[in-house]
Amino acid sequence: MKIIKEPSEVREYIRQKGLNREEIGFVPTMGYLHEGHLSLVRRCKQENSFCVVSIFVNPLQFGPSEDLAAYPRDFDRDSALLEKEGVDLLFAPREEDMYYPDFSTVVKENKLSRYMCGAFRPGHFDGVCTVVLKLFNIVQPGRAYFGQKDYQQLQVLKRMVRDLNVPVEVIGCPIVRDHDGLALSSRNVYLTEEQRKEALKIPKALEEAERLFKSGVKDVKALEAKVREILSEGDGLKVQYVEIRDAENLEEVNEIKGKVVIAVAAYVGKARLIDNKILES
Amino acid sequence: MKIIKEPSEVREYIRQKGLNREEIGFVPTMGYLHEGHLSLVRRCKQENSFCVVSIFVNPLQFGPSEDLAAYPRDFDRDSALLEKEGVDLLFAPREEDMYYPDFSTVVKENKLSRYMCGAFRPGHFDGVCTVVLKLFNIVQPGRAYFGQKDYQQLQVLKRMVRDLNVPVEVIGCPIVRDHDGLALSSRNVYLTEEQRKEALKIPKALEEAERLFKSGVKDVKALEAKVREILSEGDGLKVQYVEIRDAENLEEVNEIKGKVVIAVAAYVGKARLIDNKILES
Repeated sequence: MKIIKEPSEVREYIRQKGLNREEIGFVPTMGYLHEGHLSLVRRCKQENSFCVVSIFVNPLQFGPSEDLAAYPRDFDRDSALLEKEGVDLLFAPREEDMYYPDFSTVVKENKLSRYMCGAFRPGHFDGVCTVVLKLFNIVQPGRAYFGQKDYQQLQVLKRMVRDLNVPVEVIGCPIVRDHDGLALSSRNVYLTEEQRKEALKIPKALEEAERLFKSGVKDVKALEAKVREILSEGDGLKVQYVEIRDAENLEEVNEIKGKVVIAVAAYVGKARLIDNKILES
Repeated sequence: MKIIKEPSEVREYIRQKGLNREEIGFVPTMGYLHEGHLSLVRRCKQENSFCVVSIFVNPLQFGPSEDLAAYPRDFDRDSALLEKEGVDLLFAPREEDMYYPDFSTVVKENKLSRYMCGAFRPGHFDGVCTVVLKLFNIVQPGRAYFGQKDYQQLQVLKRMVRDLNVPVEVIGCPIVRDHDGLALSSRNVYLTEEQRKEALKIPKALEEAERLFKSGVKDVKALEAKVREILSEGDGLKVQYVEIRDAENLEEVNEIKGKVVIAVAAYVGKARLIDNKILES
């Protein structure tokens, strides 16, 4: 596995290899890899002859009061994991090579970005869109893989790619869960054993919503209320939002028709956790 | 010359031709072509084996009180001119194929865009950056050519390309002037004979500034004042700004060191005209 830090060297390396866009698959990550990331890498390997992974903790997508400095990092472990998966190129840029001191251009998605997480993390999706477009321009892949745990991110990126005619296919992959049901996240490392029990209310509440939905409950407010009720038992978990929205444009829905997403964001201790389920009638 | 209206067909056509980015040169225009545009096309032809021109009057870069509806158009004449120049592909998209009804993503340059024209045309450079990035993603050229008459636009686009790692070389080409010295512009068609005489004060004032500069005047305020003075003779011309700024980052300068631009924007009747000169010590 080749490791490159310089953006310009990535282009040069890919040019030398004579690769065209259609052969290149790409998995952008912030590192501290878990089985969720690795599932993306495996899918990428299956569908592309050349697999690029990036590790970059993007400062632009963290708010001033968020966990940028604390965000977990372990480059050597990540690198070993990716090597074992047969990744061809690991791109791990330095912050100063991604953002010049007088950096002044951002990509803003103004609709889907404002809902859900966007309402609580102003500027977050601008940071995501900007860095992903930069990474796409550096790596120039034909396909890029993102986890559905960050469901809103996936939809925002699909919208960005459509609106800006970005020649990359954005592919969402299923959430990977731990044995106990908790959606894998690099931020789970923040959880104590006690907090983890609290966190498990999230997948349980979503499962209950799914069960109710399948048993015939189609009322959005009732399903949201049930999830809130489960999450609010005890005081270990602070709900940020519980929302059922259109699965594609993330607009509010009054009743469940077609495909919707039920999404949750909550704090357990200092860990901000998100999770979701697709409900399809 | 192939003419294509559908964005997706451009990609398909270029793929079929087996062209790679480095072979493709691109001249984006809003049509109503003049010798300025054609000078870009000729340079593009010289430096690239495949020359693409686009014609698209981009609604996103016009303000609500601006001249979008009145902007001059003559597709048949433009098309004939480009054919004669030996252009390979003319891309002329429809508005609805560039902007879906729920379009929601923009590219914003937040520094250079705020000065000069940006102060009087809020959102203008967002519109320019967004459409140029879209066109770049559709055409995927190695080089793109822009006139230096729109000097700020050129610098904003260079910044965007740098900041977002867009794999396109942005090349600025000299202003082309009419026999009387007026910088060519599609908007010159708005001028009556009388107004055209007024408009000629602009190149004359810039020439005088250049003459003074070459004779040793390096004081920014004095040069700006002289240009304003010439432009303000009579009342046929309404100055919007006269500014001397750093030629690259467009920051204000106190004295002229290295390369600066002296730029003017003024209304003559309903025509908003811009012009500039580079002063280099």
